[in-house]
Amino acid sequence: MIVVMKRGATPEEIEHMIRRVEELGLKAHPIYGTERTVIAAIGEKRDEHRQSLESGAGVAEVVPILAPYKVASREVKPEPTVVRVGSLAAGNKHIGMIAGPCSVESEEQMISTAQAVKRAGATALRGGAFKPRTSPYSFQGLKEEGLRILAAARDETGLAVVTEVLAAEDVELVARWADVLQIGARNMQNYRLLEAAGETGRPILLKRGPAATMDELLLAAEYILNVGNPNVMLCERGIRTFETHTRFTLPLATVPYLHERTHLPVVVDPSHGTGHTNLVVPMACAAIAAGADGIMVEVHPDPEMAMSDGYQSLNFEQFGEAMALCRKMADCMGRQIMVNEEASSQK
Amino acid sequence: MIVVMKRGATPEEIEHMIRRVEELGLKAHPIYGTERTVIAAIGEKRDEHRQSLESGAGVAEVVPILAPYKVASREVKPEPTVVRVGSLAAGNKHIGMIAGPCSVESEEQMISTAQAVKRAGATALRGGAFKPRTSPYSFQGLKEEGLRILAAARDETGLAVVTEVLAAEDVELVARWADVLQIGARNMQNYRLLEAAGETGRPILLKRGPAATMDELLLAAEYILNVGNPNVMLCERGIRTFETHTRFTLPLATVPYLHERTHLPVVVDPSHGTGHTNLVVPMACAAIAAGADGIMVEVHPDPEMAMSDGYQSLNFEQFGEAMALCRKMADCMGRQIMVNEEASSQK
Amino acid sequence: MIVVMKRGATPEEIEHMIRRVEELGLKAHPIYGTERTVIAAIGEKRDEHRQSLESGAGVAEVVPILAPYKVASREVKPEPTVVRVGSLAAGNKHIGMIAGPCSVESEEQMISTAQAVKRAGATALRGGAFKPRTSPYSFQGLKEEGLRILAAARDETGLAVVTEVLAAEDVELVARWADVLQIGARNMQNYRLLEAAGETGRPILLKRGPAATMDELLLAAEYILNVGNPNVMLCERGIRTFETHTRFTLPLATVPYLHERTHLPVVVDPSHGTGHTNLVVPMACAAIAAGADGIMVEVHPDPEMAMSDGYQSLNFEQFGEAMALCRKMADCMGRQIMVNEEASSQK
Amino acid sequence: MIVVMKRGATPEEIEHMIRRVEELGLKAHPIYGTERTVIAAIGEKRDEHRQSLESGAGVAEVVPILAPYKVASREVKPEPTVVRVGSLAAGNKHIGMIAGPCSVESEEQMISTAQAVKRAGATALRGGAFKPRTSPYSFQGLKEEGLRILAAARDETGLAVVTEVLAAEDVELVARWADVLQIGARNMQNYRLLEAAGETGRPILLKRGPAATMDELLLAAEYILNVGNPNVMLCERGIRTFETHTRFTLPLATVPYLHERTHLPVVVDPSHGTGHTNLVVPMACAAIAAGADGIMVEVHPDPEMAMSDGYQSLNFEQFGEAMALCRKMADCMGRQIMVNEEASSQK
Repeated sequence: MIVVMKRGATPEEIEHMIRRVEELGLKAHPIYGTERTVIAAIGEKRDEHRQSLESGAGVAEVVPILAPYKVASREVKPEPTVVRVGSLAAGNKHIGMIAGPCSVESEEQMISTAQAVKRAGATALRGGAFKPRTSPYSFQGLKEEGLRILAAARDETGLAVVTEVLAAEDVELVARWADVLQIGARNMQNYRLLEAAGETGRPILLKRGPAATMDELLLAAEYILNVGNPNVMLCERGIRTFETHTRFTLPLATVPYLHERTHLPVVVDPSHGTGHTNLVVPMACAAIAAGADGIMVEVHPDPEMAMSDGYQSLNFEQFGEAMALCRKMADCMGRQIMVNEEASSQK
Repeated sequence: MIVVMKRGATPEEIEHMIRRVEELGLKAHPIYGTERTVIAAIGEKRDEHRQSLESGAGVAEVVPILAPYKVASREVKPEPTVVRVGSLAAGNKHIGMIAGPCSVESEEQMISTAQAVKRAGATALRGGAFKPRTSPYSFQGLKEEGLRILAAARDETGLAVVTEVLAAEDVELVARWADVLQIGARNMQNYRLLEAAGETGRPILLKRGPAATMDELLLAAEYILNVGNPNVMLCERGIRTFETHTRFTLPLATVPYLHERTHLPVVVDPSHGTGHTNLVVPMACAAIAAGADGIMVEVHPDPEMAMSDGYQSLNFEQFGEAMALCRKMADCMGRQIMVNEEASSQK
Repeated sequence: MIVVMKRGATPEEIEHMIRRVEELGLKAHPIYGTERTVIAAIGEKRDEHRQSLESGAGVAEVVPILAPYKVASREVKPEPTVVRVGSLAAGNKHIGMIAGPCSVESEEQMISTAQAVKRAGATALRGGAFKPRTSPYSFQGLKEEGLRILAAARDETGLAVVTEVLAAEDVELVARWADVLQIGARNMQNYRLLEAAGETGRPILLKRGPAATMDELLLAAEYILNVGNPNVMLCERGIRTFETHTRFTLPLATVPYLHERTHLPVVVDPSHGTGHTNLVVPMACAAIAAGADGIMVEVHPDPEMAMSDGYQSLNFEQFGEAMALCRKMADCMGRQIMVNEEASSQK
Repeated sequence: MIVVMKRGATPEEIEHMIRRVEELGLKAHPIYGTERTVIAAIGEKRDEHRQSLESGAGVAEVVPILAPYKVASREVKPEPTVVRVGSLAAGNKHIGMIAGPCSVESEEQMISTAQAVKRAGATALRGGAFKPRTSPYSFQGLKEEGLRILAAARDETGLAVVTEVLAAEDVELVARWADVLQIGARNMQNYRLLEAAGETGRPILLKRGPAATMDELLLAAEYILNVGNPNVMLCERGIRTFETHTRFTLPLATVPYLHERTHLPVVVDPSHGTGHTNLVVPMACAAIAAGADGIMVEVHPDPEMAMSDGYQSLNFEQFGEAMALCRKMADCMGRQIMVNEEASSQK
């Protein structure tokens, strides 16, 4: 950590900060420059120390040197994590393809969708039973009945089920039916939920909040890893910017950036990331080209009749075409969209 | 709601959308322009209908006409809501002044701060017992012990206590000790928590999420109002933008904007909104000039030793000066920073 | 255009606005809804009318229906524009690959780079002779001498030269030496420069400003098209958002979005768009997967010694690998990175 | 400047960077931490050096310690600059009040506005003769005729004239008629224009670009200061964020922030900053409370008939009320909205 003193900082202020650094158990290393003095603090333990130095008299700023996350860091575990659960594998050579409707609406809708996406090559099924909705007047999901339907669709197709959990008190229920617990973007910093979900041992799909930095996303993952659950997939689904022609701005450079910093697999959601059906396929391809370990995409038998997110859902035919293109892209990148071999070998 | 068809939309597509509008129970009113056709849909019931029209073939976009919130709307209740609880009054003529440390650290710290801010003119006390922290390795608050200390500080000074609640399962506990439940920015769209907090009947201070639009903030308030709790204070605490010289960007135009749209009082938090001690006082003054109904500000006996947010906390002397300036500003605006008269008359 | 009246608008205010619409030569079509009245204004001539209606008493908002650009619109010219100049072709089947250093530093640097990128498969050469620099104390480019060097590199390799022009008064000089005039992101709304550059008849590479919307970008292109120059390439090079792990945020969904709205080719600059060497190649691949008609990338013989932007430049070896990957991607998409056949046939 | 090496940097890489630092004429000061090595580089000359170190092998990042601007810095000139020209004074005790229409439309409009704003207490007159417009199809201003009208309004009222200059080639013409040259937000980084305008010796009002950081704004000012013109007023007029309920987001914390960093006066434009008439006055008051040295506000005899920006213009009555409030605010802050005493004493 580097404590940068103000230009006019007095010798007393500098002395004071050196003592403060030492009180924190760090080694202080002052450097007297031509215009300013900086104090390097060696042995920092991330974050905590920084805050307590920042308000010292004469301090201009404190510059952290270490990344604030630990277990998520690639420096700690250089080899990529592969998350495997049922039919789904994501990470390293494997690209997971998670498809399905925004909301579970009925058994018929869900089974027909599961069959269609499986046929086209999806490796997992998505569907919302508990729906976080911006308005209290919107459809809030079928809840437990939705979970039951998802499990029926898994029985029918063998596809692993990914579904969102909204609150710590629902975690046990959702974990009973689902293969992967999804933490939605609105809940990325709902730390109680992160810990409760992590403790189930189920793999977690953690969506980036629309205003979250990379450090904040990785620290949210750290909450899960920290309770002993190593199976975290990060999901880029777009950020809030001034752009209005897309629902969110989908910044794919996060994929190679995260691959440098963390061993965790990175999934991209081009449906929420763009909010328009006709932008979903190009951005799914682009995500694979950028190195994504998974794609999460909304598919509905009849998007015009969907109870939510119809404007960004593919129909079966569009999903079939998307899969064909994505497979070509994956080939190009030396990767595979395929069902988890462990799952198939168990059969 | 206005359904805008694409330039090349066929007569069949237009006919189809007219039928879709009518199927939704709305009256369709097509207008054939020189370049495009638009269909006005009369009788809309907000949000739901829009989504189901947006994915129709030939549709370019759907433009909503009604605001999506109802109970929060000033169109429904033109007179401003005044939230009163213990010593705090916010709304209309009353500006609430909520001051105290980021975290409750000890009984001594809390009592001395409560006494100091009361002396300077604060009308309520803030302090965090449950702390949402970006890193799992940071101090997470004293929890129940912190709540007990806050109540002791209230007993000592008569100041109403504002404190954050992080999860639905803690709501009952926090409501037992606190006067106002604060929903933090990270939890603005934690709908389960909004409803649980609302159901206690305690006034709620709802902080704007750093990427939330005005409609999203007002719809989050609507979740609370919708369970029958009318006492919601909205709190602007800054948004995420490209600016890095402040911790967040504090957009004060939200104050007069919200006053047009809603009857709910609007509080401003210049401590989180700027993240730098020396910007807090100018922005507190500016917030009052913009019409704020309350100011929430971090005060600590010794910011350099604070366990969190020291870099944005005022010390007692700085807070005294801030209060003097804020009072002049309030006078100028024909408003008052004063203890809730109902509370004092009850004594 | 749809004029939305406020909920409480009086009959007089509504009448007044109907008259105002008619005074503007438009046909007014009022629709009396259950909660509000809206007035459809038919025959709008874009932009101008909107502004003069927005300040009417009782008006809540004015919603434009037509896109504000005309000549750039795909509705006007459905087939894609292919820009061809010397060795460069961009648009439809052709992907242009524009490579070279940020700044022209010396003849040796430029010639060696031109030879290296040509060998690797680039179809045009970039290099800055006039450099817009954030600080007045930074290197501002070799100016006319730089242009001369660029032309020498073209003579040596046959690669078309793309270089930035900073001011209307330099347009003639730059157009004398260069094949394509680049308008930088800072100058996207320097309308005098757009017109002057357009009038030379040289193809223009127009970079998106970091805070520009799609409409603003297309209207900037419209300034060039409007002086009779049809050869405009749009260039996405990243926007300013809250993200700090990349220099800008590169939103590739603009590529398929622009392809829907305009016939103009869309180039992507992953060097400025990410600001880090190791993110450039994945994002170049992703851009091609998203449908980009060209890639513009910084290449330097020795990035560590570059006078500007070394941290985002590829060296020759890295560029060779990038080209190999990009070619595979282009194949996958049914497109080609190849020298403009017209140019080669002329030889 | 602090060069932070990667965790795994080899001794050779560290040695190499130490040599690189020394080659740049700086003193290298390596610090071997528990997890990483950092090299402090003493004697830096801003910006240039940083870039050439950032691409070194094994380097994680380079952290600058010095602000990149020099002449604009408060460290160099601690006392505030007061810009005085004709009736206008801005800085230190003086708040300038610059009012007038967006566009000069006619002599009658301009003279009547000048008289009305003078009566209400404005200390300078604004009005656009050269208009930068997003669309080529919008009204582009009366140009030279507009300048003549502005001068006539000055003759009539004694108010100093502030007007925008769009291009280096117009600078001489505009400087002949105007008292203050305004550089618009779109041109903040049009460096050629900055230098040309600076060289006239006229005071400059420099508007912040909607995506510009504080350093970029101050470096743009530095271009003007650097040609020997000390009279620069910075103008905050809002930034581009995800907010859509206002035209831009107006971040008033820039006012006290800039006052810490620079001696230059800071003007706020609440008309462009909000884009809605009814938000202009609260934000003008808030700007003064935040410490602004000037307010720039759009006033039009009949906003509904304005040729541009009517939706954000005050009429004469509204401006009168605004002035009354602003004066009270200025009093409160111990400041004055008054005509430049030097100008009046010269009469």
